[in-house]
Formats: sequence, structure tokens, C-alpha cells
Amino acid sequence: MFNLVKGTHDVILDEAQKYTYIENVLQNTAQLFGYKEFRTPIIETSELFLRSVGDSSDIVRKEMYTFEDKGGRSITLRPEITAGIVRSMVNAKLFAMQDYPVKGYYTGPCFRYERPQQGRYRQFNQFGIECIGITSPHRDAEVISMGFDSLVFLGFENVTLKINTLGDDESRENYKKALRDYFGSHIENMCNDCKERYQLNVLRILDCKDPDDQEIVKNAPKISDFLSENAKQSFETIKKDLDFLNIPYEVDESLVRGLDYYSGVVFEFHYTSSKGKNYGAIGAGGHYGKLVSEIGGPEVEGCGYAMGIERLASVMSDDNLFEDLTDTTDIYVMPLGERATAASLGIANYLRVSGYNCEVCLEGKGMSQMFKKAERRNALYAIIVGDNELDNDEFVIKNLASQEQFKVSSDDLLKKLDELLNFEGRKHFECCDGDCDCDGDCDCAESEENKGCCCSHKE
Amino acid sequence: MFNLVKGTHDVILDEAQKYTYIENVLQNTAQLFGYKEFRTPIIETSELFLRSVGDSSDIVRKEMYTFEDKGGRSITLRPEITAGIVRSMVNAKLFAMQDYPVKGYYTGPCFRYERPQQGRYRQFNQFGIECIGITSPHRDAEVISMGFDSLVFLGFENVTLKINTLGDDESRENYKKALRDYFGSHIENMCNDCKERYQLNVLRILDCKDPDDQEIVKNAPKISDFLSENAKQSFETIKKDLDFLNIPYEVDESLVRGLDYYSGVVFEFHYTSSKGKNYGAIGAGGHYGKLVSEIGGPEVEGCGYAMGIERLASVMSDDNLFEDLTDTTDIYVMPLGERATAASLGIANYLRVSGYNCEVCLEGKGMSQMFKKAERRNALYAIIVGDNELDNDEFVIKNLASQEQFKVSSDDLLKKLDELLNFEGRKHFECCDGDCDCDGDCDCAESEENKGCCCSHKE
Repeated sequence: MFNLVKGTHDVILDEAQKYTYIENVLQNTAQLFGYKEFRTPIIETSELFLRSVGDSSDIVRKEMYTFEDKGGRSITLRPEITAGIVRSMVNAKLFAMQDYPVKGYYTGPCFRYERPQQGRYRQFNQFGIECIGITSPHRDAEVISMGFDSLVFLGFENVTLKINTLGDDESRENYKKALRDYFGSHIENMCNDCKERYQLNVLRILDCKDPDDQEIVKNAPKISDFLSENAKQSFETIKKDLDFLNIPYEVDESLVRGLDYYSGVVFEFHYTSSKGKNYGAIGAGGHYGKLVSEIGGPEVEGCGYAMGIERLASVMSDDNLFEDLTDTTDIYVMPLGERATAASLGIANYLRVSGYNCEVCLEGKGMSQMFKKAERRNALYAIIVGDNELDNDEFVIKNLASQEQFKVSSDDLLKKLDELLNFEGRKHFECCDGDCDCDGDCDCAESEENKGCCCSHKE
Repeated sequence: MFNLVKGTHDVILDEAQKYTYIENVLQNTAQLFGYKEFRTPIIETSELFLRSVGDSSDIVRKEMYTFEDKGGRSITLRPEITAGIVRSMVNAKLFAMQDYPVKGYYTGPCFRYERPQQGRYRQFNQFGIECIGITSPHRDAEVISMGFDSLVFLGFENVTLKINTLGDDESRENYKKALRDYFGSHIENMCNDCKERYQLNVLRILDCKDPDDQEIVKNAPKISDFLSENAKQSFETIKKDLDFLNIPYEVDESLVRGLDYYSGVVFEFHYTSSKGKNYGAIGAGGHYGKLVSEIGGPEVEGCGYAMGIERLASVMSDDNLFEDLTDTTDIYVMPLGERATAASLGIANYLRVSGYNCEVCLEGKGMSQMFKKAERRNALYAIIVGDNELDNDEFVIKNLASQEQFKVSSDDLLKKLDELLNFEGRKHFECCDGDCDCDGDCDCAESEENKGCCCSHKE
């Protein structure tokens, strides 16, 4: 047996359905907001992340999967996707088109060499969005509201939005200076990580989880005292928009986020279940000022967020937020004998082409075994095919829940199934889409030309 | 500016839409055949591929992205996905459940360090399926027919299926012996690759593209003369099923496929356009005997195929097989002034929550600029919001194609849009799904409880 690489996991069957469901909801929401899909490579030059994520971040310092390829290039498995998305926008010259904001969403795997622990993986999936070319704080509010709406669509109630502002460059530089002054007299007594943070990026000290350090952090200067008039104004506009949109939030001045590129508003979505269980952050993001120009683009600002699919799936499972995702099989075809087996392969394929999810037993099993197999696959109906039925051009259909069964001629099979399985909302693959010439006058589905068509056929 | 890693590419905007379209069709087809989604990690232990893909293959010998992680483990970016899928099935003990065949599909990136060339990438996307626990050749025929149907659903006409059989173990050993005897007297005059293939896996010589070598290959012994009775019988059944399913095929005895794990039937789907352009193989697969047991599972056989998304997208683009994938924006909200801008953020979000794809200008642009922006986003309708409209609780809706415009009260907005935009087939996010208590008796959508509901509301 071969083991998984440490910190990775398989996502299969039901679990895969959950991931796909979550991704679909997040993607559909992004599309409603006019975002387009971006897929960028998993491998990028290491330099991209040094510059964007920042060499003072834990990610770059400790967690990257970096290696040399056969050509001697330093390559990194992306630890996050924002840098790649911005790079792709710059390389494709999307900012030259001036159709701002440029809006993209992404879904895919990221890699961080962290200590594996419950729910934390070294390969994990992120969904995220980037909105770039922002000149109005209303746009930040829109981004935040989209994140909030996505979570509502997923079924989360009582999401708490925590927000803070890191101010503009001027505010932040003044604030950092004040923090260095303040922590300067305490740093000797703080943890080693904080000592490093003091040198690399003093803002990070505010993130420290050490209880003794937290006591010291408590009395540190607050960003709100250092905001420029402009930064203050932007933050006020965002809060007013959130009020107007009925999105509840808490201002949390300790919120700084772990990436170097943020400035302006930063935010996290926290979730506490109706039973009172606090799951912490389930999504986060912020405004960035210099990221795009660092990556070679123009001096434009952006805002984005990311959500971890693993995290969402685990919280939603734990709190029973998934709708019923049980897969059913529409039809299980049960042949009796070799002649019927070959014929059933054709029948099953015909049903599939007609839009029915279908299984067929091709291994010459007996009836009772086939019924067991049909049950395991949650089949709704069985079609039983024997030599008799083939000779008479008819089938036996059995409702596997009620056990009721009846005969149907092969000509009427599809019509009968459409009725039984309530074909509404689906479409036969060969449907003419209302594009045939019959004007509803003929029994279109039956004609050779429109065999399998369902749009007239459903009348 | 940061470059892409050599051999990788961004898939963005229209191109991403094409990929998603292709993947959806392939996944939907697999689901109709009862296949479930499997997502396995991109990084696997290097050993897995040495054992499964095989150390005589070009992939393992020359093309793998292999590196050591910080823990000193030898890790490989998967060069193909079959090995990972089988590993995941073994690790999850799916074969112990005996509900054969176990059926999975996958979609995702693979990595091979090949010479980059037109349409060939070092990171590329594959869709594929694995059907494992096969005891009847009908099942192989079903797998092949699913691949064929997928291509038909994508819009390919005149796909040519090339098939061959590599026989069972006994047939193949006898055949290899005959090939070694035959090539033994020619190998000195053949290319260096063939000399290596002679040592590692003599079957591979049949794949050689060197014109001089091909002359020698032409007269080599044929597998058909070495098939055991059993292998012959299986191949006959598969061909008979394909005839019955009306799937045209050509037997091509030079077809051996580049992976070590194949035995039994192997196949490729080739495409020649209606204009006569031959695009070569657009999908391929085969039956495998020992792969599952090599990876630690039971002695069961499988069959699968893979298709390259890059390849399909490029052929379909070149041959104009894509339906119109143009994205439209349902509504562009145009605020006049700061008060209207804040309000429009709310209006846009309300429309999005109601299922409309919507853009809103939040940057205080003038009318003519907003119309230009709406045009760039292919917007169908504009909603114009000024102070007047806000005071009177009404909106101006403008059809951007016909330029026709009219006023609508805010109460009637959604109803009007549902009518204009033909909301059929979509669903408002807050729809009760027919699950409310009104029995169709009240104007459900208007009640506070069912605000935004569309199922009664559509009557």
C-alpha cells in the first residue's frame, strides 16, 4: 500500500460532492457579481511570492514548497493564489484596457508546509476573488458584502464580520513607528517570534497568541489614533454601506492579517453556530495598495478575500448545514442472460444519452444480486430485460421503492420514464432546444430526425 | 513583470469558460454512467509512479517533477492521475466492499517536464475515468462507449476509434519474446531510443516515429498471432458490442500506448474535421491487469481513459465546435450622484440575491461613461437611479439593445425584470422551492416571509 504524502488528503465520493457543492455556490455568487474565472498555474517562480506575499511573512519564511526544476529554475508550489491572479492580469495587460475594476475569481489547491493538524492540510483548496482598480470605498463594501452573501447562500446564519483598517501608507508608517516605540521597551520580555516580528514587521506582534504577550499588546497604541483624514473617511464609508446593507460587523483593532500586502480595510468572517459553538474565521481578506505595482502592474489598488474549502466543508458538516446530497441512480438495467446483457448495454446507453443517470449489470448476476446492487446505488427504477421481453419489444419497469411493476413497449419507454421520473428541468442530450421546424405540429420526438428530443415530447 | 514558469500557461476569461464547459460536459457524461468524483493530491510519493506508471516509461525516466520536501521525503508532482485514483480507492478500502465495478472520474492538473511546444504544456489538465473490478469485456465496451459519447456531447462528429488488444499476460509474454527475437537482428541499425526500448520494454519499439525504424516495425510479428483463446474471445465481444452500439472503429495493431500498466484492450479516439483536417488523438485509454494489485489492492482489473483539456479546447476552437459562450450581464445599475451610489449598492445586491447577474458603477462616473462600461460588459438592461427616482421610489429601466426605456415602481421591479429577462429555469436564491404553506393562495413572493421567492411569483 502506498501512503499519502504527509499532510495531504483524498477527497472522494460524498466528500468530493460537498467540495463541489461549496465551490459551485461560491462561483455562482461571484458570477452574479460579474466576476470571471481565472486559472493560473500551481507552479510559479519563487520570486513572485517573495515579492508579493512578502519575505517577512511566516509563509515565505517557513512554509513554502520550493524546489529546482531540471532546468535549474527555482519553482514554488503556490502557497496562495492572489499573487498568481494579479500576475496573470498584468501579463495579459488587462489593466491597460482601463475597464476597471478588473474582477476575477479562482478555485484550486495551495501548498504550505505547516505542522499537519486536525483540519489543516499541506495541500488545501482555496476559493477567492480579486477586485482590482478600486478608486472608491463603496467597492470595498461591495466585495465584503459578496463574501457575506456567499456564506448566507451556503446556509450560514449569524456570520460575524470583523473589520479593521490598516490605513493608507502614511497612517501605517506613523502607526508602525509608534508601535516600535511602544514595543521597544517590552520586547526583551516577549516571545522569540515577537522579537523576530519586531525586526521584520512590527504589525505582526499584534497577532501574537502568547498570553503574556497579549497583555502587553493590549496596551499598545491603536491604529485608529493614527489614521489620516482620507483613511478615516474611507473606513467610515465602508461601515455606512455595511449598515445600509444590513450586514452586522464588529470593529476589531487587533485584526492585522498575516500577509504583507494589505493596507486599508481588512476583514474576517467568523461563525458561531445556533448551538453556540464558535468555529472562528471561515473566510478573510482585505484591501491592498501596492501589490499590483510590486508585480509589475500600474499603481492601482485592489480588494479580495479567500475561503478555505476544507474549512467550510468541515464546519458545514459539523453543523449539519449541507442539504441532502444523496446521489440517486435513475435506472438500474437488469439483464437476464447473455443476449439480454449485450442488448442492455445498448438500452443503458440510449437512456444515458436521453439524460438519465443509469447503471447496468454486465456481469451476468442473478436477480437477487442485481436488486442488492441497485439498492447500494440508490436506484429509483429497475428495467428488467429478458429474452421474452426482447422478442416482444417490451420492458418490465419496476419502482424499487413501491415494488410496483408494469410492462412498457420499447416505443413508449422514454415517454413513460419522463413521466415517472419527472423529467422537468433536465434535457435530453439530443433535444432540439425548440429549434426544429415542426411548429409543435408533429410528434417531433418520434420522428427519426428528432429522436430523443424532449421539448415537444414533454407536452 | 514576473514571467510564468516555462511550459505553464494562464487560463483566464474566455479560455477559462471553454475549459469549464468541456469539463462540465465530460463530468456530466460520467455521472450519467454512474461515476463519482475523486480528487486526489497533486503531490504523491515518487515511489507510487515508479511502481504504477513504470520505470521503463518515458514519463518516469525523463519527465517527472521530483523533489525533496523539507522532511526529506521524495515527492513528485503527479504526471498522470490514474495511479492516485487507484491508490485512493485502495486506501479507502473501496475494494473490500465488493460493490464492483468501482467507478470514479477526475479532473485536474498534471505535470510533465517535456519540451514545451505548440499546445503542449508542462502543467496541463486531464479529465479521466477509472472503472475497476471488471470481470466482463462488456464493461470495457461500456467504458469505450462512454468516451465516445462524451466526445459526441462535446460536438465532435466523425470520431474514429482505434483499438487494439495487448492480450492477457500469457499472450503478451509470448508476443514480447517473438518481438525480441525479431528485433534482435535489426536493433544495431535502429535509433538509440529503440535500443533502450529493446532493453526496457520491447513493445515500445512499435511506437517509434523514426521513418527507417518504421520500415522495420512494419514486418514485425503481430499481436493477433499470439493471443490466447481467452484474450481473443474478449476482444471479439468488445468489437461485437461496439458494432451493436453503432460505434465505428478500426483495429490498429501498432497501437500499444505509452504506459507500462496496460493489458487487454487499448484505444484512442482520433478526430478528423468535416473540412478534412486530421487532429490526431483527442483521448485514449485501455484495460489494465496488474495496476491495482501493484498499488496494494486485490487482484482486480480495470479500464479507463483520459482526455487532455488543453488539447480538446484547442481542437474545438480551431474547428469552431464551441457554442456561443458569450457572457452577458443581466443588469447594469447606473447611479447619478453620491446618494444614489450608496443606494445602488443595495439595489445591485438585492438583484443578485434574486438571481440576476448584475454590475453597478460605484465610482461616480457620468452617464456616457457608464453606458460605455455597460456595453463592454454586454449588459442587457440598465437601471438608472437618481435622487428623483429615490424620492419617488421608482426606477428607470432601459433596454440597452432597443434603447427603449420605462419607469417601474420599486415594488414591481423584480416582477418586471422576471418578465423582461425571462427568468425561467433560474431560481431566486430565496425561493421557497414550493415548500411554503400558502397553497398558491397568496401572493407569496410579496409577503415579508417569502420576500424574493420566485416559485409562486412566476405564475
